[in-house]
Amino acid sequence: MAKKKSGKKGENSKLGRSDYYAQLEQLQVELNQLARWLQHHAKRLLVLIEGRDTAGKGGVISAMADALPPRVCKTVALPKPSEREATQWYFQRYVPYLPAAGEMVLFDRSWYNRAGVEAVMGYCTPAQTAAFLRQVPVFEKLLVDDGVLLLKYWLTVDQALQEERFAERLNDPLKRWKLSPVDLQARDKYDAYGDARARMLRATHKPHAPWTLVNFNDQRRGRLTLIRHLLDQLPDTALPEAQIDVPMLAHPPKRERFSGPLKPIKSV
Amino acid sequence: MAKKKSGKKGENSKLGRSDYYAQLEQLQVELNQLARWLQHHAKRLLVLIEGRDTAGKGGVISAMADALPPRVCKTVALPKPSEREATQWYFQRYVPYLPAAGEMVLFDRSWYNRAGVEAVMGYCTPAQTAAFLRQVPVFEKLLVDDGVLLLKYWLTVDQALQEERFAERLNDPLKRWKLSPVDLQARDKYDAYGDARARMLRATHKPHAPWTLVNFNDQRRGRLTLIRHLLDQLPDTALPEAQIDVPMLAHPPKRERFSGPLKPIKSV
Amino acid sequence: MAKKKSGKKGENSKLGRSDYYAQLEQLQVELNQLARWLQHHAKRLLVLIEGRDTAGKGGVISAMADALPPRVCKTVALPKPSEREATQWYFQRYVPYLPAAGEMVLFDRSWYNRAGVEAVMGYCTPAQTAAFLRQVPVFEKLLVDDGVLLLKYWLTVDQALQEERFAERLNDPLKRWKLSPVDLQARDKYDAYGDARARMLRATHKPHAPWTLVNFNDQRRGRLTLIRHLLDQLPDTALPEAQIDVPMLAHPPKRERFSGPLKPIKSV
Amino acid sequence: MAKKKSGKKGENSKLGRSDYYAQLEQLQVELNQLARWLQHHAKRLLVLIEGRDTAGKGGVISAMADALPPRVCKTVALPKPSEREATQWYFQRYVPYLPAAGEMVLFDRSWYNRAGVEAVMGYCTPAQTAAFLRQVPVFEKLLVDDGVLLLKYWLTVDQALQEERFAERLNDPLKRWKLSPVDLQARDKYDAYGDARARMLRATHKPHAPWTLVNFNDQRRGRLTLIRHLLDQLPDTALPEAQIDVPMLAHPPKRERFSGPLKPIKSV
Repeated sequence: MAKKKSGKKGENSKLGRSDYYAQLEQLQVELNQLARWLQHHAKRLLVLIEGRDTAGKGGVISAMADALPPRVCKTVALPKPSEREATQWYFQRYVPYLPAAGEMVLFDRSWYNRAGVEAVMGYCTPAQTAAFLRQVPVFEKLLVDDGVLLLKYWLTVDQALQEERFAERLNDPLKRWKLSPVDLQARDKYDAYGDARARMLRATHKPHAPWTLVNFNDQRRGRLTLIRHLLDQLPDTALPEAQIDVPMLAHPPKRERFSGPLKPIKSV
Repeated sequence: MAKKKSGKKGENSKLGRSDYYAQLEQLQVELNQLARWLQHHAKRLLVLIEGRDTAGKGGVISAMADALPPRVCKTVALPKPSEREATQWYFQRYVPYLPAAGEMVLFDRSWYNRAGVEAVMGYCTPAQTAAFLRQVPVFEKLLVDDGVLLLKYWLTVDQALQEERFAERLNDPLKRWKLSPVDLQARDKYDAYGDARARMLRATHKPHAPWTLVNFNDQRRGRLTLIRHLLDQLPDTALPEAQIDVPMLAHPPKRERFSGPLKPIKSV
Repeated sequence: MAKKKSGKKGENSKLGRSDYYAQLEQLQVELNQLARWLQHHAKRLLVLIEGRDTAGKGGVISAMADALPPRVCKTVALPKPSEREATQWYFQRYVPYLPAAGEMVLFDRSWYNRAGVEAVMGYCTPAQTAAFLRQVPVFEKLLVDDGVLLLKYWLTVDQALQEERFAERLNDPLKRWKLSPVDLQARDKYDAYGDARARMLRATHKPHAPWTLVNFNDQRRGRLTLIRHLLDQLPDTALPEAQIDVPMLAHPPKRERFSGPLKPIKSV
Repeated sequence: MAKKKSGKKGENSKLGRSDYYAQLEQLQVELNQLARWLQHHAKRLLVLIEGRDTAGKGGVISAMADALPPRVCKTVALPKPSEREATQWYFQRYVPYLPAAGEMVLFDRSWYNRAGVEAVMGYCTPAQTAAFLRQVPVFEKLLVDDGVLLLKYWLTVDQALQEERFAERLNDPLKRWKLSPVDLQARDKYDAYGDARARMLRATHKPHAPWTLVNFNDQRRGRLTLIRHLLDQLPDTALPEAQIDVPMLAHPPKRERFSGPLKPIKSV
């Protein structure tokens, strides 16, 4: 029992803010090495981030993208398909966003919508989900065989935490817009989402494109876990940084001078 | 007097972190009201953010965009033009990103490149800059007459601060990628950039499209000042939030269950 | 009377097929010179083709485009705007198609929709048409001042001919799809379209962007007239063609050989 | 000699112009039925047109597309990939052009470039061609399983005819631009192109995506043969045309009237 409790401490107590930032910063340094490695070796990295509503998909994506050059790290969160797109090959609207050489593309949700929200909420037919589950390993194998580095993460969260986060979105005027009607409908379908996930894993967890589940009950810990795992999947990416020579200024630093009538406005 | 001095303290000393976040949060709440107002009234808001290297363009854009629904607030930072684009009408590659109804578009740099970096670094001819300065008030008037709400900000910074920030980029492995060769060349051209700005203001500070200069020597203070100013340019945007009804769950919150072999990986 | 008749012969009798093709071919040779001239001098040519339904906009565009390299000559016929586009700056969806260096872009209908079909059929408000008529000379001047060569043609046709062509579309299974419900509504609005044109000409026939009306009662003659006029607006475009050396084959010409089971199918 | 001549008549004599147009028109009527059928049943048709230089890819595509509504029939002829595209998944730049419901897309050349011109001219490595030949049947099966109707045509031509057409391009100022340096290099590689085709057929002629070879020594006959074959692959597409009611005009047909100073220019 005591053991369990202390075990709980390691795994389950929330990670403090300053601990989190200290660890995150170290990971972000490694992500920058990864970015240089991708550029230097012309590699392509594709990361799919899936998971329950409120799990923290956007947060972990920001934790990575905010520290990286935007020409290397691109995030993709597609809106729902147009009427015309809905009649095309299912993967068609995702394909233009696949990475080019030297790029790392983070998908905030992905083609797996068809096995998750679309299946659970009835936005597609069961036949469409079944067809998707047959096509996706083939499609992903085409990418992997072409040399794309593919990582797929699914963020888990217990409903108690999910409820807390819904309540927070409801009450925080800065998060209110994140609360969508679909989110609320999803509350009654927690098990259905779990079943859909199980089915998806059975069909699409393949040696060439395995899934990794990450517990996001503690979002800070979840982010660190996911990023650590991601970095560990890739080879040693250390590359020396370019030396940049920054000579002394030849004069004392100058100050802004405003020759016309326009001056900076009074600061708050 | 003592009071005044402490008032000065308010102006010139750097704003503390927690003060900053407290004030920013209040502004972000107002930005969310603005977003709802734009959507409700089908308004279009276009904000150009210009300024010296390291002034903090990206930072103030994030401070706004991070708190807003991405379908409302879009940021645009265009790469340098392709060879084909370089031969087109100068405004052509910017036009596709102008806001639609209910949108707020933040340009991180803009068409004013042609009066700033391109002019100073010789990436365009003096004739091209002169032509641009003649066209831009006409072009902006077309947008404003069409109902686009246009705000233009130029972020100022003294060279001493700029030097500090270059040094920080050089030494911080998380910021190293932000340091470009053009940045370093710009150090010798501080005055030339100032002259280019003066010329730009003379040609393009128009009643229908005025510029606002904001002092970003203290970036936190600069962000608050700019956002406060932006909010003050717009009419009272208060709109009641939609009421969202979140009923109690009909059952105890559920926990994640994993029927297959795949479980969440061990957390860090 | 006799005079009138002979006048009729010159102007009004229909041009025969072989005469037409002989003259067209000569014009197409000159269009090819024009294409080389545009490429060599990095010029941009923008041609707007407007006119009544059935006047023959598509036909004259094909007569030009079919004889020209597609990398030089591009035709643009935009579908009706999406809901989102309809809220943007009116010119926004046209701007991406403006010519780059060395290109000749032919618009099959253009932004002038707002002064024609949209105004007559009530697809926009009178205020929108009025605003458009104010903006268009300013917008076009921006392009012309930037160096774009702009030509605007309006194809006229009497209603008797228009009726013949509607009947032909109705009865010819290859042209049936060209007959739209809007076409048929337009029959009752022949005068309203004429009035809209008169208003458009008053507002937008400017020295920097003049209109040219071409009579398309005889489509063959109309095409030759328009193309001749277009060529005459541009400077002498003669440029020597590149010499291409085509040596003799070193062997008798080879024949197709099919090593596998697959052979060409039987010809009709 | 006489025998040879009469033998030529059935298969090999050139089809006369008026015979050709009479037969083509009947096929175009059927193509219009096909277009209505695609729209009515929300089907997607993808047609790849490959073949030797000068075989007549563009001509057969025009023969189909010119008679069809452009919202149904789209032609795609991609330029060579940009540097960035060249590093992406090979199929990536083609995928955005795959048909939506009710559409018929004609590819003038296609992804098979990698097995043809790229392989023969050394624009890609042998490993890239080999990888392509492995991927293409898998990729095409994804499309076909998704319901896309896929037809693949390869146009054959003997070198004697090819030489005639090169000479015609050289001497006809209207066709000169079609003659590219790559075309001329291809003359020495007639057999290599044939070998590349044989290899391509072995790897990609699959039950779900068979090839059809069509002899284009006589281009008119080749066009009719290809279109006839295409129509025969699809189910009975007859659908009644919508009845369109065109009432009599309530007044005599009107004539153009020009209230302002602008009149149609003098016709040629």
